[in-house]
Amino acid sequence: MLDTLRQLNATASFNQWAGLEVVSAAEGEAEIRLAWRPEALGQYAGFLHSALIGGMLDTACGFAAFTVAGKVMASHFSVNCLAPGIGRTFTCRGRVVKAGRKQVFASAELLAEGEDGTHKLIATGNAILVPV
Amino acid sequence: MLDTLRQLNATASFNQWAGLEVVSAAEGEAEIRLAWRPEALGQYAGFLHSALIGGMLDTACGFAAFTVAGKVMASHFSVNCLAPGIGRTFTCRGRVVKAGRKQVFASAELLAEGEDGTHKLIATGNAILVPV
Amino acid sequence: MLDTLRQLNATASFNQWAGLEVVSAAEGEAEIRLAWRPEALGQYAGFLHSALIGGMLDTACGFAAFTVAGKVMASHFSVNCLAPGIGRTFTCRGRVVKAGRKQVFASAELLAEGEDGTHKLIATGNAILVPV
Amino acid sequence: MLDTLRQLNATASFNQWAGLEVVSAAEGEAEIRLAWRPEALGQYAGFLHSALIGGMLDTACGFAAFTVAGKVMASHFSVNCLAPGIGRTFTCRGRVVKAGRKQVFASAELLAEGEDGTHKLIATGNAILVPV
Repeated sequence: MLDTLRQLNATASFNQWAGLEVVSAAEGEAEIRLAWRPEALGQYAGFLHSALIGGMLDTACGFAAFTVAGKVMASHFSVNCLAPGIGRTFTCRGRVVKAGRKQVFASAELLAEGEDGTHKLIATGNAILVPV
Repeated sequence: MLDTLRQLNATASFNQWAGLEVVSAAEGEAEIRLAWRPEALGQYAGFLHSALIGGMLDTACGFAAFTVAGKVMASHFSVNCLAPGIGRTFTCRGRVVKAGRKQVFASAELLAEGEDGTHKLIATGNAILVPV
Repeated sequence: MLDTLRQLNATASFNQWAGLEVVSAAEGEAEIRLAWRPEALGQYAGFLHSALIGGMLDTACGFAAFTVAGKVMASHFSVNCLAPGIGRTFTCRGRVVKAGRKQVFASAELLAEGEDGTHKLIATGNAILVPV
Repeated sequence: MLDTLRQLNATASFNQWAGLEVVSAAEGEAEIRLAWRPEALGQYAGFLHSALIGGMLDTACGFAAFTVAGKVMASHFSVNCLAPGIGRTFTCRGRVVKAGRKQVFASAELLAEGEDGTHKLIATGNAILVPV
């Protein structure tokens, strides 16, 4: 499944462009990672841009859904920004909450790893994915 | 105000990297635009990636909030994906719904312009912005 | 359609208990109303309870969806609370944003009518309804 | 804290009317319960009404927030409806995810207890609470 998700990830030009990597996968779960690059990923104050925050949360949810439902499209996602996105790498874990026939509900957490190696929860999200 | 938003936009490395432009601004309103680039902005099926969908909606909301409240940070945003993100350019209009002292509520619509020049609503979003 | 929605409304025990009325209906639209009763509908500070705020927004969205898709179940709804729910009556207008085969997206606005007859926007919401 | 929350709960007319009880409370956590009454709490198909689903999720989040921040008002809440609300009692556990000075983020799960005593997750939710 990890190989399959990595192949799927490789077909998404944005994921390649941004540098998103698939770290792990299991039944109903997936984890992705992004290395910080100040010249490409920041908002006006120099923190991780909301596009990457939302994009990582939705992608981790979608990859988690993929492990139980195959290819999906997001129909809804929401994002709670808990702390500024400051770190050298960002890791996002998605988890399927409920897999129905028409809709898969998933949630995700986004952690920032600081220079000292500690992890901090910076955002949470939910997504509804529709099997295609 | 348009000049001010363009300067703010220029300080966000992601906005520059992705090619986000500020098109217009008014009291409580802002509009941004993105030209489609298949080699950088797609998800696995070749449609506009959710990172750009969510990022444009949140940015348009944030810029609209900026016109009434100055610098803000998003604390929450949500995205409804109504149709696949297919088009040569994407335009997103944000509008302040309610500006409070602690929180600014805004909403936005994302339109895709097709090869034939027609516009289609592909996503809607809401954001809560906190003045900083 | 108005008669049909009123019959549907009459089959929901909560709607009867709370006193929800269907005011109007059209293709993709519905409006409901609730008269304020301090002894039954308040939260701790005496404002309209979030259950009624969310319930009215979701019901107006569901009734609007019913006009184009028949019976539906909400799979997701979200609520923005813009101002305290103070008024003698509350009116909520729902509107279909996009009706797909698997999902109907709708949004709604909740207005409070004060003692002086003026209306104030107190909450907005979005819902995703699934045809059953 | 449990006594304080029960006193707060007793001041909300809707909570009394619907029969909401506070079951437990701890630092950053609260649990509430509702006994099913078909004559008052149902939607058109006889399941628990979205008003109660959203109202319980938001109230559990608000009570959890109260344990760390005192009196709060919800500014946003969202609800995922995972399964029909069928049961003899409904229990909702709220938990603070992040308590900031301006905003408290909380999440909650709503479980239905069936006639056989088993529990089923029927909805999840998130709320943003503002200290007042």
